[in-house]
Amino acid sequence: MYPKSFERLIECFQLLPGVGAKTAERYAFTMLDAPQEQIELFAQALIGCKKDIKRCRICGNISDQEECPICQDENRNPRMICVVQSPKDVIAMEKMQEYAGTYHVLNGLISTSKGIMPEDLNIDALLERITPETEEVIIATNATIEGETTALYLDKLLSGKGVLVTRIAHGLPMGGHLDYADELTLIKAFEGRKSLK
Amino acid sequence: MYPKSFERLIECFQLLPGVGAKTAERYAFTMLDAPQEQIELFAQALIGCKKDIKRCRICGNISDQEECPICQDENRNPRMICVVQSPKDVIAMEKMQEYAGTYHVLNGLISTSKGIMPEDLNIDALLERITPETEEVIIATNATIEGETTALYLDKLLSGKGVLVTRIAHGLPMGGHLDYADELTLIKAFEGRKSLK
Repeated sequence: MYPKSFERLIECFQLLPGVGAKTAERYAFTMLDAPQEQIELFAQALIGCKKDIKRCRICGNISDQEECPICQDENRNPRMICVVQSPKDVIAMEKMQEYAGTYHVLNGLISTSKGIMPEDLNIDALLERITPETEEVIIATNATIEGETTALYLDKLLSGKGVLVTRIAHGLPMGGHLDYADELTLIKAFEGRKSLK
Repeated sequence: MYPKSFERLIECFQLLPGVGAKTAERYAFTMLDAPQEQIELFAQALIGCKKDIKRCRICGNISDQEECPICQDENRNPRMICVVQSPKDVIAMEKMQEYAGTYHVLNGLISTSKGIMPEDLNIDALLERITPETEEVIIATNATIEGETTALYLDKLLSGKGVLVTRIAHGLPMGGHLDYADELTLIKAFEGRKSLK
């Protein structure tokens, strides 16, 4: 058996997703060999992230202020709302540098298998954001069963609000080969075909 | 960009071996959703492991005391010393519940490619432990190039000390199939053949 405080650290690392006993042990040994200051920074970062990070009260994205930088940015169009699953997706969308509207982070997707219901998601705040000025709600959840379920649910929920609800396109990814694409992707790509104008 | 304190946590996780930006991000999100107490325990464990864990002054294994429990145990035979690379290997050897001698942890292996020389390892303390009473030094380093190099080095170093130096056997692992074994393993297994007495 390892010393108790070492065992405790191994157990802590096992809280991380996909980390089993062997990996946790490896991580703990790395920490044991790391310089003292690095370990203290790590411990501070852990405590700090929980203390300093809030959810933006408008869109639900993580932020160190009451309102996130995107919601505060006056150059962004608040009449466009792009609905995503998680803060990671906001980062991914921002990378394309094409979209100048705002976001709404659901912090999850409806999942019957995981028992996640619409009331567990940040949907009420989305409804509150819809005003007569709102032009479009773009549903950019993942192209998974859960993402599609959530998209259909939101579409139904928003249908009476006089706002355009769109879903990002599904199809062959750029650089993708037909013979490597799965059938569902091909069906979606085929269904979504457009004239080459 | 994520909030600064969140970015900092992601950077910290990237210090762990084999953890890139994506995995670190995933770990950081897990921590964000974890309960406050769990995070505090984690931070304490990080700081605690560095503070509480020493190297046993006899064998070099990690320990929360000056001398590790194995070196302190009077039921263990101090005239047998099993030399291993790391504390992990002590745990592995102890699992077989067959060996009642002591250990010596090198905390590394000689590696020309990584620039690890004999003087970087816990070898001086091993030499100090060899007394006229010492019966056997069992070299149980890995069956890798580095493990073999270290074994040969130690064998040469201890050759004049009047102590029996042995190396653990190499061969087909139990449950192993001949047709799946690599050539080197087969050569070792063939060379090490014994009569079935």
